[in-house]
Amino acid sequence: MRGKFVTFEGCEGVGKSTQLRLVKEDLARAGVDAVFTREPGGTAIAEKIRSLILDPDNVGMDAVTELLLYAAARRQHTMELIEPALAAGKTVFCDRYIDSTFAYQGFARGLDLDVVHALETIAMGDVQIDLTIFLDVDPSVGFARKGGADPNDRLERENAAFFQKVYEGFRRAAAENERIVAVSAPGTKYDTHETIMRLLRERGIV
Amino acid sequence: MRGKFVTFEGCEGVGKSTQLRLVKEDLARAGVDAVFTREPGGTAIAEKIRSLILDPDNVGMDAVTELLLYAAARRQHTMELIEPALAAGKTVFCDRYIDSTFAYQGFARGLDLDVVHALETIAMGDVQIDLTIFLDVDPSVGFARKGGADPNDRLERENAAFFQKVYEGFRRAAAENERIVAVSAPGTKYDTHETIMRLLRERGIV
Repeated sequence: MRGKFVTFEGCEGVGKSTQLRLVKEDLARAGVDAVFTREPGGTAIAEKIRSLILDPDNVGMDAVTELLLYAAARRQHTMELIEPALAAGKTVFCDRYIDSTFAYQGFARGLDLDVVHALETIAMGDVQIDLTIFLDVDPSVGFARKGGADPNDRLERENAAFFQKVYEGFRRAAAENERIVAVSAPGTKYDTHETIMRLLRERGIV
Repeated sequence: MRGKFVTFEGCEGVGKSTQLRLVKEDLARAGVDAVFTREPGGTAIAEKIRSLILDPDNVGMDAVTELLLYAAARRQHTMELIEPALAAGKTVFCDRYIDSTFAYQGFARGLDLDVVHALETIAMGDVQIDLTIFLDVDPSVGFARKGGADPNDRLERENAAFFQKVYEGFRRAAAENERIVAVSAPGTKYDTHETIMRLLRERGIV
């Protein structure tokens, strides 16, 4: 039986990595064979593309070039790692995927959404996402938690208005798409983890 | 007045670089302000993408990933160098451009031509090619001239059948597209140069 594909989305510092780690620990304890990966990156070639995208030296990068590089990294990651794992019956959890591209490049940068969707289709091939968990936390909270933006990351050099727009983009995607479930995370990280595990059980993922 | 955009296409080793150098020398003598560039590459960011594509370590690169990386390099090159030069009234000569993508990735690798054309449009934006000179020389002649394939170039590791298919792809593109003029180059490089200069004058490029 084919495995399930779950993506985690949300702004910087809102706890995606922490939540994914907690899920990973639970599944390891339960003996579930799952794969945890992230975007952009996830394979050696995709990581090289990721370095190009994030390198602060590349200040002159055109917004559509950036979009095409994300699509290239995603294609490689999907074909080399995600698709074979799903075909082998494993559950795959991915930190960021297509909805980040919609929120950052499509909604916040205002790139042509037809282009964004065309590249999504090219990158994903026949892969389908079974569930997307959107950690619905305001980016100002996220940056405060992680102690400010990383100056070595070209994308984190954008201003607060940009990240508010990214957040709006995620909310728009969640409102328009049944696949995406918003988790508002008002309590502790363990409360949020409980909500996420309940959702995964309800959807038959774990 | 906006400058003209001319591309040179053809298989490996058929004399594109030599012919472009001869054109460059003629135009320099005539005091014409022209820009000579090449793909993949042409700007710092695009050159970094070019290195990723050609690196023999990246043997596991998916064919569509490669196509997306070519499109990313082309987008950057077009927006950062070609479009500003054309807008400033300069004539731009480019060693390889969209027809190489059609011949190598579309025709020879058999990738979906709708995808190839969609990425062409995304990469080029509003830029138009005024003339394409296709050096119509069989690839077996080209490889013999350059003394065999370059083992440090991932793409030159393909076999002879692949390069015959690339050649067929170029001939197909030339047959279907009035913009492309085939120059068969049976004589010396100076004969071919004369043919090319005559063509450039006839088309009002120089």
